[in-house]
Amino acid sequence: MNKSPDELLKALTLTEKASLVAGLNMWMTKGIERLNIPPVHMYDGTNGIRKTNSNEEMGITTENVPATCYPTGSAIGSSWNTALLHEVGVALGQESKAMEVELLLGPGVNMKRTPLGGRNFEYYSEDPCLTGELGAAFINGIQSEGVGASVKHFAGNNQEFEKMVTSSEIDERTLREIYLSAFERIIKKSDPWTVMCSYNLLNGSYTSENEHLLNDILREEWGYDGVVLSDWTAVNDRVRGLKAGLDLEMPGPAHYNAKAIVEAVQDGKLSEEQLDKSVSRILKLVERVTGNKAAEKEGNADYHMLARKAAAESIVLLKNDNAILPLRPETASSIAVIGRFAKKPRIQGAGSAKVTPTRVDIPLDEIKELAGCLATVSYTAGYPEDDSVNEELIKESVMLAKNADVAVLFVGQPEYAESEMHDLKGIELPEHQVKLIQAVAAVQPKCIVITSSGSALVMRPWVQHVPAVIHSWLSGQGMGRSIAEVLFGYTNPSGKLSETFPVKLADNPSHMRIRGENGKLYYREGLFVGYRYYDRKELAPQFPFGHGLSYTSFAYTDLEVVQHETCVKVSFQLTNTGKRRGKEVVQLYVHDEECKWTRPEKELKAFAKVELDPGEEQTIVFELEERDFSYFNTKYNRWAADTGYFQILLGSSSKDIRITGRLHCDFGKEEITFHKFSLLSEWVSDPAAKAVLEECLNEMNEHVTDKVYLNEEFVGFWEDFPMIKVFQMFGQTWMNERSPDEVIQELIERVERVRNN
Amino acid sequence: MNKSPDELLKALTLTEKASLVAGLNMWMTKGIERLNIPPVHMYDGTNGIRKTNSNEEMGITTENVPATCYPTGSAIGSSWNTALLHEVGVALGQESKAMEVELLLGPGVNMKRTPLGGRNFEYYSEDPCLTGELGAAFINGIQSEGVGASVKHFAGNNQEFEKMVTSSEIDERTLREIYLSAFERIIKKSDPWTVMCSYNLLNGSYTSENEHLLNDILREEWGYDGVVLSDWTAVNDRVRGLKAGLDLEMPGPAHYNAKAIVEAVQDGKLSEEQLDKSVSRILKLVERVTGNKAAEKEGNADYHMLARKAAAESIVLLKNDNAILPLRPETASSIAVIGRFAKKPRIQGAGSAKVTPTRVDIPLDEIKELAGCLATVSYTAGYPEDDSVNEELIKESVMLAKNADVAVLFVGQPEYAESEMHDLKGIELPEHQVKLIQAVAAVQPKCIVITSSGSALVMRPWVQHVPAVIHSWLSGQGMGRSIAEVLFGYTNPSGKLSETFPVKLADNPSHMRIRGENGKLYYREGLFVGYRYYDRKELAPQFPFGHGLSYTSFAYTDLEVVQHETCVKVSFQLTNTGKRRGKEVVQLYVHDEECKWTRPEKELKAFAKVELDPGEEQTIVFELEERDFSYFNTKYNRWAADTGYFQILLGSSSKDIRITGRLHCDFGKEEITFHKFSLLSEWVSDPAAKAVLEECLNEMNEHVTDKVYLNEEFVGFWEDFPMIKVFQMFGQTWMNERSPDEVIQELIERVERVRNN
Repeated sequence: MNKSPDELLKALTLTEKASLVAGLNMWMTKGIERLNIPPVHMYDGTNGIRKTNSNEEMGITTENVPATCYPTGSAIGSSWNTALLHEVGVALGQESKAMEVELLLGPGVNMKRTPLGGRNFEYYSEDPCLTGELGAAFINGIQSEGVGASVKHFAGNNQEFEKMVTSSEIDERTLREIYLSAFERIIKKSDPWTVMCSYNLLNGSYTSENEHLLNDILREEWGYDGVVLSDWTAVNDRVRGLKAGLDLEMPGPAHYNAKAIVEAVQDGKLSEEQLDKSVSRILKLVERVTGNKAAEKEGNADYHMLARKAAAESIVLLKNDNAILPLRPETASSIAVIGRFAKKPRIQGAGSAKVTPTRVDIPLDEIKELAGCLATVSYTAGYPEDDSVNEELIKESVMLAKNADVAVLFVGQPEYAESEMHDLKGIELPEHQVKLIQAVAAVQPKCIVITSSGSALVMRPWVQHVPAVIHSWLSGQGMGRSIAEVLFGYTNPSGKLSETFPVKLADNPSHMRIRGENGKLYYREGLFVGYRYYDRKELAPQFPFGHGLSYTSFAYTDLEVVQHETCVKVSFQLTNTGKRRGKEVVQLYVHDEECKWTRPEKELKAFAKVELDPGEEQTIVFELEERDFSYFNTKYNRWAADTGYFQILLGSSSKDIRITGRLHCDFGKEEITFHKFSLLSEWVSDPAAKAVLEECLNEMNEHVTDKVYLNEEFVGFWEDFPMIKVFQMFGQTWMNERSPDEVIQELIERVERVRNN
Repeated sequence: MNKSPDELLKALTLTEKASLVAGLNMWMTKGIERLNIPPVHMYDGTNGIRKTNSNEEMGITTENVPATCYPTGSAIGSSWNTALLHEVGVALGQESKAMEVELLLGPGVNMKRTPLGGRNFEYYSEDPCLTGELGAAFINGIQSEGVGASVKHFAGNNQEFEKMVTSSEIDERTLREIYLSAFERIIKKSDPWTVMCSYNLLNGSYTSENEHLLNDILREEWGYDGVVLSDWTAVNDRVRGLKAGLDLEMPGPAHYNAKAIVEAVQDGKLSEEQLDKSVSRILKLVERVTGNKAAEKEGNADYHMLARKAAAESIVLLKNDNAILPLRPETASSIAVIGRFAKKPRIQGAGSAKVTPTRVDIPLDEIKELAGCLATVSYTAGYPEDDSVNEELIKESVMLAKNADVAVLFVGQPEYAESEMHDLKGIELPEHQVKLIQAVAAVQPKCIVITSSGSALVMRPWVQHVPAVIHSWLSGQGMGRSIAEVLFGYTNPSGKLSETFPVKLADNPSHMRIRGENGKLYYREGLFVGYRYYDRKELAPQFPFGHGLSYTSFAYTDLEVVQHETCVKVSFQLTNTGKRRGKEVVQLYVHDEECKWTRPEKELKAFAKVELDPGEEQTIVFELEERDFSYFNTKYNRWAADTGYFQILLGSSSKDIRITGRLHCDFGKEEITFHKFSLLSEWVSDPAAKAVLEECLNEMNEHVTDKVYLNEEFVGFWEDFPMIKVFQMFGQTWMNERSPDEVIQELIERVERVRNN
């Protein structure tokens, strides 16, 4: 591009502008040769690049151009490592350039409202702070290479069931605190070049044409000036979409909509200025992606190593009784590896995020390699591909396990269960796998279970019978190696669950509430998603949010919490008290003691991943801002923090809080504004108002049978009565033809006069 | 009244009419002497008559005219005995007449959404079927005596916190299935002469002026033509209220509103016809209450015996390990009675339902009387009046219990905890009482606990340490005698819990959600109130809905479920298999196996209380109608039952199902109406639509790269895509300037043509 977006805008005809706000085909924006405006090439990819073989194809069910497959969102979300996310982002930016991809359609940052969500594997977490921090780091990485990112799906699409015809009904407070919060953090911390709207309706209006979402919040409140593009076919009414701020329709060319736009401008139904805004933003995007061509790099030699590293940070050691892991040659000289996933690992989910990997580490091969000559490794498939119950396979597995020193079982959600477009049917392992684990554990007490899935799993029927569980998620092409390294202790596990693993599916807050009815899906659990719900219900999960074991141990000491002018500074000492080098994910939660509005018991507000040598200690410092103490107050339609006591909880998981501090924060206090429905309790709490009221009641008491005195008994009983109704109840004979509205109005005026004197 | 309401209406001036639609004072309607229209005298009373000493007084905190105090709503709700409710209703009708009360302001039939609701003790149950049946029987009893009833509070007021300034936000389906269902049953089965609106707003509009509630549903849909009156001061905008159908404002005289009404009629803002409707209904009420004066009866000699009988049916035996109850003289020759409630029983709650009883049975006295010379009875207070922890009182109690054969502890919610205007703070016993029970149970294994409260109690900290628990609720002036009779076996207990007793407060579906924020209280648990929630969450309650033990046992056999033309007939044999005469509450629940909309696991649809001698058997028959299989379908805005399999569950509690039948019900099936957002799955499920679609796709495939075939793989992946978006995704190059709307419209027309041929 050799002209500025402003100059180009002036040179474009109305018809050209209308054509620019839709794609050219499935994966490109339209270029205008006459003005030397090049097209932008974009492809799917939350954990790797899914570049189809042609720009005309959707290609979801076919093999695409090979690219590095990193851990999926839920896996890398469990790394809690922003530096890692940045590094992967940089690598993806480089690989994109090498593949001639200018805009990468990721990351996916929707909240995990239900463990059954078909795209959950693409998303980071059930918590907006963790999601937002990781997403921002990832985007900053990609965009540092001159490649655009697209944060998606904006917003409120948290299940697959009829998502295109379902309105997510989310109250404003929940929307702000849970479903938009990660997006807001990402917009502010990484300025993604594009935002992709979702398929669903939000509170009755498609997100592709939702003014409140796209204009009031995203543009006006957050100040976003990048491109908003539609998820593929998410456009409904194109003109309405332009008005709301949806810049780019995908896929294109959508000639019928270009025609509709031109007509709307000509008929005065759409202002050309509105169209110009979207065209400008698209031209600015073109300028951005073309500006960095020079920075292109070569090859993908190191990407596989990075994929392994990322997997190593993502894997979560859930259980490790009696420190059975890591495996030691002296007690594990024969290892029975059981389960098809050892040979054919589930490295990712299906749908638009499915990458054709450049290579895949096979867990069994990696185990054999690391075992070397110290241990023999045997293998059996364990379960059939179709997950039907097959007693023969169980018998075989039991024999193999019995004759070995240790059994390592690879199990998980079947391949077909986790895919875009379809929600999961359950989060228990297939019946055969459960029977397999139980049978093997019965003969081999050293039974290590390695689970694969992109969402939480229910483990109740078997987890109590095995000493060790490693959750490997769907951790990309380097997963096989990383699992082997964790098993043998070459990697000290450091992943922490980015979502709660419940005891049973019914424990989930949105249980039986993920299917819309009559086109509406009410997010009834409100704020209480994930650990916020388990906390509130005093419901013990199988493994809590933030949980993950290490081969070493950490101590938290010397907490200091100090309120400064504009922030609260939290510091403490973290010490590696074990015998191995290892990483701890330090989690900071805030608890509001006094807020009158219902708040979650605690909320994650900061975290850090820290690596320490045995015996090493480090001072960890966090700074919290007013926003970290705030909730979204729908009365004032803004974030608000209430003056009062707060607790700062620091821990190794949401259920393993190690040290707690307490402080009083002063965020000011509002004077009561009296109105006719102000309660008796409010009137007596304000000295001026109470005095005025007493004077009035004295006068009234001369005319009524049932006299009103503001004594403890009366106020105690009637405190929740609005003042106007106290007069309706007790003042009828006194008021006569005067209405209680008039009486109250007069009182309020008197209070104002007293206050102003 | 010597003229008909129609004649009177014509004779009334506008000013007179405007004055008639408000009360004269606190407890009377206005009479018009000139036309010989007498006033109507009304008083509070859900479990007895609260007649104040003057018509000018609210009188909530004073002693009123003595009247029989029957068990409160939650107590008598646990009788599950419609005949008893009718009998109590008749007695209240008679007593009303004797006290010159023409309209009794009860029953209260709101749903128990939360165990913390301050007025819960006034309400029957967490289930609308049970509530509706009991409420209708009670009203039929009262009105059979020529006294009017007032079913209240209509609707959606289920907590006390800021109820006058809080909008209950309840989705339409939940409103219909849970919160209006009991009212609907009552209107249809007992035609109450009046309905009292509630204080709160419902979905943004005060119920006193809510057109959807008062007009669309109550009048139009249910055909109600009685009087709607306001709860005391519930009127907000009087003119708007009249338009919506609120006939009578209480208390009066509200001169300012009479003036406003006259002005509104004169200004054309309110039609006089609208005012006339309300005046007519009030005149009809006057006619009704004056029509039966002749039937007046004398005295209240039998009422106390009826109060005892009602209490005996209400008390629930929750636990009775090793049949420790009833007490036998041979093993209980010395009885330690512990707890103040034994001397000062809690027979009712506080607020507008508080009756000044004619006499009160004292449990300790009744125990002594029934023990006679067979057992010695000792007593100690057990806990201080203020519920502070007092170790001395515990020591005394322990000594007394140790030296007796059996300890009977009277505990419960303190008097101050349960009152209109204030929600409960918790549902655990005060700390002192818990310590008392634990200490006594530690020294006396025969420890019988008798609990009093108007709402569910949490019993976890102590219930496992005692062999027997009797929940006596707040069972009115005859409660003391009835407890004694249950203890000694003169009464075989037959009450069943009308609400779930959870393990802990946090288990409740509306936990931390009973306080509105910014004037709105979202009923987020939706349909899942009470046992419907515990079922769905697979959450074991301490004692489930419908639970209650007997001194005998019952067998359920020979179930037959037969579908007839307009009903399903369910019959089975009930046999008393124990050694005592006793009553069983048989509960019929329906489970919908196939409905696409989320439904509760099961719902109570019928019940019967049956008394049998030892060895006696009886055939029990229930008839279910289509409505009993229906849910409120908000797409069609009507009740609908889906064709498919249902289960009929018969049991002794909601968790003790004894026999289950299954049947297929055919309620017809609707033909798909195609529109642009109809899903691919819908298109392929209809033969005509599929054929048309295939033809169209064949044509399209000639023009596009990514071809669409309706094979298993394609349909399997894209089934939830609306057809219009399939064209947006795959048909762009084929459609060209034609819009997908046009393509779909054409397809739909073709389907219509095929169907019509």
